[in-house]
Amino acid sequence: MKEEVFFGEGMVNVKKDYPELYKAIVGLNEAAYTGKIVDYRTQKLIALGINAAASDERATKKQMISAMKEFNIAKDEIVDVLRVVLLTSGMPPFIKAMKILNELIG
Amino acid sequence: MKEEVFFGEGMVNVKKDYPELYKAIVGLNEAAYTGKIVDYRTQKLIALGINAAASDERATKKQMISAMKEFNIAKDEIVDVLRVVLLTSGMPPFIKAMKILNELIG
Amino acid sequence: MKEEVFFGEGMVNVKKDYPELYKAIVGLNEAAYTGKIVDYRTQKLIALGINAAASDERATKKQMISAMKEFNIAKDEIVDVLRVVLLTSGMPPFIKAMKILNELIG
Amino acid sequence: MKEEVFFGEGMVNVKKDYPELYKAIVGLNEAAYTGKIVDYRTQKLIALGINAAASDERATKKQMISAMKEFNIAKDEIVDVLRVVLLTSGMPPFIKAMKILNELIG
Amino acid sequence: MKEEVFFGEGMVNVKKDYPELYKAIVGLNEAAYTGKIVDYRTQKLIALGINAAASDERATKKQMISAMKEFNIAKDEIVDVLRVVLLTSGMPPFIKAMKILNELIG
Amino acid sequence: MKEEVFFGEGMVNVKKDYPELYKAIVGLNEAAYTGKIVDYRTQKLIALGINAAASDERATKKQMISAMKEFNIAKDEIVDVLRVVLLTSGMPPFIKAMKILNELIG
Repeated sequence: MKEEVFFGEGMVNVKKDYPELYKAIVGLNEAAYTGKIVDYRTQKLIALGINAAASDERATKKQMISAMKEFNIAKDEIVDVLRVVLLTSGMPPFIKAMKILNELIG
Repeated sequence: MKEEVFFGEGMVNVKKDYPELYKAIVGLNEAAYTGKIVDYRTQKLIALGINAAASDERATKKQMISAMKEFNIAKDEIVDVLRVVLLTSGMPPFIKAMKILNELIG
Repeated sequence: MKEEVFFGEGMVNVKKDYPELYKAIVGLNEAAYTGKIVDYRTQKLIALGINAAASDERATKKQMISAMKEFNIAKDEIVDVLRVVLLTSGMPPFIKAMKILNELIG
Repeated sequence: MKEEVFFGEGMVNVKKDYPELYKAIVGLNEAAYTGKIVDYRTQKLIALGINAAASDERATKKQMISAMKEFNIAKDEIVDVLRVVLLTSGMPPFIKAMKILNELIG
Repeated sequence: MKEEVFFGEGMVNVKKDYPELYKAIVGLNEAAYTGKIVDYRTQKLIALGINAAASDERATKKQMISAMKEFNIAKDEIVDVLRVVLLTSGMPPFIKAMKILNELIG
Repeated sequence: MKEEVFFGEGMVNVKKDYPELYKAIVGLNEAAYTGKIVDYRTQKLIALGINAAASDERATKKQMISAMKEFNIAKDEIVDVLRVVLLTSGMPPFIKAMKILNELIG
């Protein structure tokens, strides 16, 4: 279930305290991850690429875990995404993401 | 040919004036776009997502043109990428990319 | 009407071609700009600050126009926002935003 | 006192070792937070929005603490700022800021 | 004179309308560009690198013009800065800066 | 040896598992840090400025350590770089980098 991806610590509180905001986020999430052609799995790889390119450690890690759990996405597949991060965004975000990946997989 | 993607105005001069730098860029480009599992077409969608998320008008436009020319990637498919941009990076980069897309396709 | 702010070129096409995505965006917009304590006017100043800090010329200009049209926000008030941009984000985004402001007001 | 906001670990050393740089920073801070129309409290909310939109964990946390301490700014008021962050900058910076807020307030 | 670098369109208005803010900016500029060891010329190269890495077209162009005018900095020297931009920040900001440089020098 | 700079945790794995990607990165690194006019030492200061301006804690720390180890770059010299970061990128990245510097040097 796509919605579950959001259920981190922060979002649980949003659901409880700001239900109308939570509902809008669920609606956005649903519309974003319901592509006409590109499947959800590929969209998740794109999200991983964007988060890693933005050097966002927390979001990158979460996307990697979700990618491996939800879709059995392999290490090589994630590295293929990070290759694009290296080309478009340079060494620091690439190295940071590789380090996160190594810590997750070993 | 993947290499051709780089042949914009700027890169022509790099090739002529800084051949060793050009060679390194071609090597990087080749390694980046030669994934083990993710195909080149999907990697280009990821690059488009990263460029659009970074609000880079020039790179986004170039990626869209390349996506449509090299791979016959349809408008709906690009919008599927931009859905992820909206979710991960907010309205301004999404609107900017939609505007570029509309100008390219009409 | 808050929704109207979105009715730029790009969004008109989203409404026509991707109604479910459009609906999600309107929902997000509504939830975002319906604060419990901070009023819409102040939230718009915050959005202007964020867009200017991100050096997003297009979004900054649009927010300034909307601020002056919707709320009669004065030049001095916008500059007060840009003072924070200068402190938090440095000279280049500050100068860029001041230039946009000068072109709008003269 | 506005100046006090800066007195973190780093700035103490700047004051001691680079007094002329410190003086310039105090001058900038004073000029930035002395708006003609927008009051200091609102300017701090704008700064919080900009820091959170930039996914800057450290600065976001510091602004939240300062907002609650200096102005008794309530949780709902901070969330109103983060609503704008969500709209303009996407889910990852919003979730990150919500998590910081939850850790601060519980 | 270091101060002159700021005298773009935007800053002229700041000087006239917000003299206290202008004074703070001049003070910051003076303190920033008065290093203890690194000379002003090298600091300008660093500023160019930062602006180009941030994909800021306007600031990059202005820094290049200032670098060539104030210090007779040659094309090869600017390219040496952009090499670092390529490594740290990826292809899009590098290509954008190379294009600006080519337009300035031909 | 310039190449050594990359030998962090992440890169060791890249070398072992993705030798062709590693080779491309080494080639890029070599080309980037072999300027025609600007020496390697100055290029490293530029890289430090770019990493600090991007608020990248990990890369900033690594660049500072490398700067002090490889070139005996003094604290005052690093602060001269951070002065430019303050001017171009605002207080949060400046304070963050000063804090890292203080923790490294004390």
